[in-house]
Amino acid sequence: MTIAQIDAAARRLHGHARLTPLLNAPLLDAAFGKRIFVKAECLQLTGSFKFRGAWAAVSALPPGTRGVLAMSSGNHGQGVALAATRHGMPAVVVMPSDAPQVKIANTRAYGAEVVLYDRATEDRDALGAALCAERGLTLIKPFDDARVIAGQGTVGLEIAAQAHDAGIDTAQVLVCCGGGGLSAGIALALEARAPGLQVRTVEPVGFDDMARSLATGEQQRNATTTGSICDAILTPAPGLMTLPILLWLAGPGMCVTDDQALHAMALAFTHFRLVLEPGGAVALAAALFHTTSDPVICVASGGNTDPATLALALSRFA
Amino acid sequence: MTIAQIDAAARRLHGHARLTPLLNAPLLDAAFGKRIFVKAECLQLTGSFKFRGAWAAVSALPPGTRGVLAMSSGNHGQGVALAATRHGMPAVVVMPSDAPQVKIANTRAYGAEVVLYDRATEDRDALGAALCAERGLTLIKPFDDARVIAGQGTVGLEIAAQAHDAGIDTAQVLVCCGGGGLSAGIALALEARAPGLQVRTVEPVGFDDMARSLATGEQQRNATTTGSICDAILTPAPGLMTLPILLWLAGPGMCVTDDQALHAMALAFTHFRLVLEPGGAVALAAALFHTTSDPVICVASGGNTDPATLALALSRFA
Repeated sequence: MTIAQIDAAARRLHGHARLTPLLNAPLLDAAFGKRIFVKAECLQLTGSFKFRGAWAAVSALPPGTRGVLAMSSGNHGQGVALAATRHGMPAVVVMPSDAPQVKIANTRAYGAEVVLYDRATEDRDALGAALCAERGLTLIKPFDDARVIAGQGTVGLEIAAQAHDAGIDTAQVLVCCGGGGLSAGIALALEARAPGLQVRTVEPVGFDDMARSLATGEQQRNATTTGSICDAILTPAPGLMTLPILLWLAGPGMCVTDDQALHAMALAFTHFRLVLEPGGAVALAAALFHTTSDPVICVASGGNTDPATLALALSRFA
Repeated sequence: MTIAQIDAAARRLHGHARLTPLLNAPLLDAAFGKRIFVKAECLQLTGSFKFRGAWAAVSALPPGTRGVLAMSSGNHGQGVALAATRHGMPAVVVMPSDAPQVKIANTRAYGAEVVLYDRATEDRDALGAALCAERGLTLIKPFDDARVIAGQGTVGLEIAAQAHDAGIDTAQVLVCCGGGGLSAGIALALEARAPGLQVRTVEPVGFDDMARSLATGEQQRNATTTGSICDAILTPAPGLMTLPILLWLAGPGMCVTDDQALHAMALAFTHFRLVLEPGGAVALAAALFHTTSDPVICVASGGNTDPATLALALSRFA
């Protein structure tokens, strides 16, 4: 992949995705003794960066495409749903039947047809493949797709420009990491446009497949994908496209605890007036508790949390 | 006052105050059947628009100014504190001794000296005047000051440009209203730069001094300034500078209930991932519940709420 693909994605996203602000907060800086910048991607359409990759992929489809399909219980599905709807294209999102009702309802409200499956008895991938074959739909993968990585990379283009405007030319850029699409895209963009800014991936403790993969140079897997509050970034293993990019460009992977993610949610409430979901708060948590980089930039990747989770974070840490 | 004063304030604020985004949310639009745009001024430095007016005033002071003084238990004091600190100038903020500890602590953390007074036994205005005289400080009023109004008016310059980019040339612009500095500044900016956008003020029910003043053409007062959850916008009466501007440019004043403000806070959480304070949510509440304007633009003026108030809003309306 090259920077030209990210630039092309940025042109396709222009006027459709939101340019999100890079925020800082004087009192947080004072409390932690360093300058902390938050890329507020929770303000993106559909509440997470996933809309960028979805739009980049859908907008690159050839004429005559009959529709798209995504397999996702969360942010990727909502991003694909809205991107397809705004292209006047049908979207099918395959979701587990025990997904939270609000996520199912939102995915439908963004215009998608939701197809539910039983986690215990059905094979999601087989169901998705069958639907694609039957209906002539194009699968939009969540991260192992050059168009999607390029779309997420537009976050990096914006960070490069915003950091320059803030007088920052050397810093770590901490990015939450599931499959690695966001961190790989940002890493590629920064390598071309702000080479003093280095990506470091952030994962929940115990789900550090990317950190171990970066350390060993080979794809490592998580033993399970449940058990952390950071549900949005629990993936089985790094992508086969994203891992080589991150092996080339990223520093060592970082990990934070669920409590640290909740603490970061509470500080985002207090100092940035932003709602973050736990998986969207891990990079801020790493900026606060796990790096000496000063300044440090972190991506607040999503805000789709429920009231109870925010209330938990506030009751414990605000 | 003229647009030239607002343009001059914008030049002084450039690079110091934040250009805040104008957001919309597809699912909220669908739920309410109209296009709703939120100017996210809660993302401004110090968490409210007040930093703009404070910066505009402090940056216009003549060389040799010895320091500034503000009388405020809330957002104006924090805005003046940070603006003065960043100009290398001493700031004194006069606050009631029963103000919330976090507000006192934050005002100090922004660099101000906090002088406490007893609401029951001391006269705030006399205390402030005495301090100004003793120490040679310049009083920064919260709204009845041309520099402050011009600073708040930069919100209107940004709305004019952002609405244009969104294809909006005719709409109501709903603005929360205490003394009227923000609404007057925005009204002046829009009159010059986007004359199809009309300001309407929004106040809490029972504290509708501006609405009654606009209706009667003469300054009306509130009977009390306590008793609504929207504490940030409870002022005794419209300003003597702001009222004539709004009589000239604004439509009829609007009012919302405390419950509607809480409901708007909950919807801001769900659909915009923003934390609003009750007084900062009244314009969104009016956009949702009290106007047929489509599209409608509303200013989310501040986010300095406490966890308990947000929890109350979420428990009732999310």
